[in-house]
Amino acid sequence: MSTTDRLSRLRQLMAVRKTEALLVSQPENRRYLSGFDGTAGLLLITAEAAVLVTDSRYTQQAGQQAPDYRIIQMSGDVGSWFPDLVEELHIKRLGFEADHLSFDMSRRLGSALDDNDLPTRLVPTTGIAMEIRMTKEPEEVELITRAIAISDNAMDKITAAIEPGMTEEQAAWEIEQTMRTNGSQTLPFEVILAAGPNAALPHAKPSDYVIQPGQPVVIDIGARVQGYGSDLSRSICAGEPDETFKKVYKAVKDAQAAAIAGAAAGMTGAHLDQLARDVIDEAGYGDKFGHGLGHGLGLAPHEKPHISPRSEDVLADGMVFTIEPGIYLSGWGGVRIEDTVIMENGRIRVLSQAIKMEV
Amino acid sequence: MSTTDRLSRLRQLMAVRKTEALLVSQPENRRYLSGFDGTAGLLLITAEAAVLVTDSRYTQQAGQQAPDYRIIQMSGDVGSWFPDLVEELHIKRLGFEADHLSFDMSRRLGSALDDNDLPTRLVPTTGIAMEIRMTKEPEEVELITRAIAISDNAMDKITAAIEPGMTEEQAAWEIEQTMRTNGSQTLPFEVILAAGPNAALPHAKPSDYVIQPGQPVVIDIGARVQGYGSDLSRSICAGEPDETFKKVYKAVKDAQAAAIAGAAAGMTGAHLDQLARDVIDEAGYGDKFGHGLGHGLGLAPHEKPHISPRSEDVLADGMVFTIEPGIYLSGWGGVRIEDTVIMENGRIRVLSQAIKMEV
Repeated sequence: MSTTDRLSRLRQLMAVRKTEALLVSQPENRRYLSGFDGTAGLLLITAEAAVLVTDSRYTQQAGQQAPDYRIIQMSGDVGSWFPDLVEELHIKRLGFEADHLSFDMSRRLGSALDDNDLPTRLVPTTGIAMEIRMTKEPEEVELITRAIAISDNAMDKITAAIEPGMTEEQAAWEIEQTMRTNGSQTLPFEVILAAGPNAALPHAKPSDYVIQPGQPVVIDIGARVQGYGSDLSRSICAGEPDETFKKVYKAVKDAQAAAIAGAAAGMTGAHLDQLARDVIDEAGYGDKFGHGLGHGLGLAPHEKPHISPRSEDVLADGMVFTIEPGIYLSGWGGVRIEDTVIMENGRIRVLSQAIKMEV
Repeated sequence: MSTTDRLSRLRQLMAVRKTEALLVSQPENRRYLSGFDGTAGLLLITAEAAVLVTDSRYTQQAGQQAPDYRIIQMSGDVGSWFPDLVEELHIKRLGFEADHLSFDMSRRLGSALDDNDLPTRLVPTTGIAMEIRMTKEPEEVELITRAIAISDNAMDKITAAIEPGMTEEQAAWEIEQTMRTNGSQTLPFEVILAAGPNAALPHAKPSDYVIQPGQPVVIDIGARVQGYGSDLSRSICAGEPDETFKKVYKAVKDAQAAAIAGAAAGMTGAHLDQLARDVIDEAGYGDKFGHGLGHGLGLAPHEKPHISPRSEDVLADGMVFTIEPGIYLSGWGGVRIEDTVIMENGRIRVLSQAIKMEV
């Protein structure tokens, strides 16, 4: 789908939300709506106009990547371009992305309006562009699927190759090289590979810790294709699993299966989270599953919908998200199993295919 | 220098700035002041207390990395921990990082105070932690120097190896592999390697464009060691340089040399920028040098001091920053030469040593 179509979907939603004009500062929203993937810039969108403001490093690139937009080169502070633009477009109420724009930037925009005696009001908004991004277009699913194939392949290779004596860092770099040489861009997040006690930290960084026989190893990786990421976790045992590992692994795997089987369109993220949490509670590890069950992914490695105990996001066809229960035991380690799924015809189809252990 | 010492420097500066308590949300500030390098968390610092609030993914790691801090595990919205903490610490005025904290988060903090009838006032602040970070400790210079050695080595290898027929992506991945296998963590920014017309975009992404004979190639890379980055640019010609290349390259090199020779403690960033800009103006390319001359670097790839036409930052001993003039000609390409320097005894010492072309 072209950015022209995305702009018209955005404008429809802006009309519903009574947002006459929207200033987009959040990087993935900016990229999604314009095609421009530089690191600095703002979009200003009204029913008629679409303007991309960026600095001299990016004006040429922006012109190439964002043909739907008029490009303005900014220099200096917002006062040098913002009041003129707002006045030219006759904007009375300008929505901004309150969950992204800094307090200071909102204040500078407000001062620039005041200094020029403009009557324009700044109005905090949240989630307008994300609401569109949350449902993936077929072209986006295709890119995510390509990223998933890369991480599946790398995961199957490392889970077969990993053995006691390797350091976490060595194994993590093996994975990254495999994904990058198979076509992944810079990874959407750093490889997580944590052994033994380190695996009790859900977001551990790979260290020079040497993997020991019989230890659990949690591996959490993502590849990226044209900006779109994958997200995949597997947990293995380096050697013979002990009883704790078997019990924990089974609880996590069963919890994930329950969520996959029970998920349905119309359900909230909190409801889906509960399906997995019930299984882990039942197994006696309720207080060892501290994070949410999953999250949407796309241009951002974490985006809507949230699948967590308090999430009111309603699941719907076209959403792509992770299901990743985990159990973490301080001093021993942890197990997390994460797949990426898509909702289609009201049910879940699992996209990632990396091998899981049988225990 | 330990985080204990950094905390006491911060508290001294807070006293000067009449900031009774400070909420730190900016990731590099959080890491610098606490030692905790997770991706989520807030610090709350008063003259007496130092508290780190993070979620269940990170509480164990935070406890290990940030021994100076009391760790609070948050769950749910700010209302569940923020008012209680503010009340317990008897905070009357709480500074927050207005250039980082989102408008929305500042509003949620304010609402949580109101909902609990607390008299605490939120006060926007900027640059308190950055002012300390801007001057590097010897241990930080040591880490930056190690990162510089890695990027110098990778640059010398690629400038010797690059030749027409390679794609930008191939060359960029060669560089990244060299740096990573030589001890760099995940890079502080993606490798920039742009040939021919692409080199006219100061921040181009490597593409499948095949490098042609006689084209300028701009290469801009950084390595990272224990969080601290380097930043290095060289420009080469793939084959025999034409007259334009020679003229542009000489102007950029002379501009850099003028800035390095003329820099002195007490000078503003704008003044130093002008020393290089004058040389490029003189050569007739004044309007082709669109970005600032340089920037500080450390835990963040771009931080204070700014070396740019409007910067009022005053250069002082212990600051580490880049000097990177460039000339960009649309359709032809560009040349940028960037070194990292430190100010010592009032003058500049150049830290990066990668080979430059003779033209």
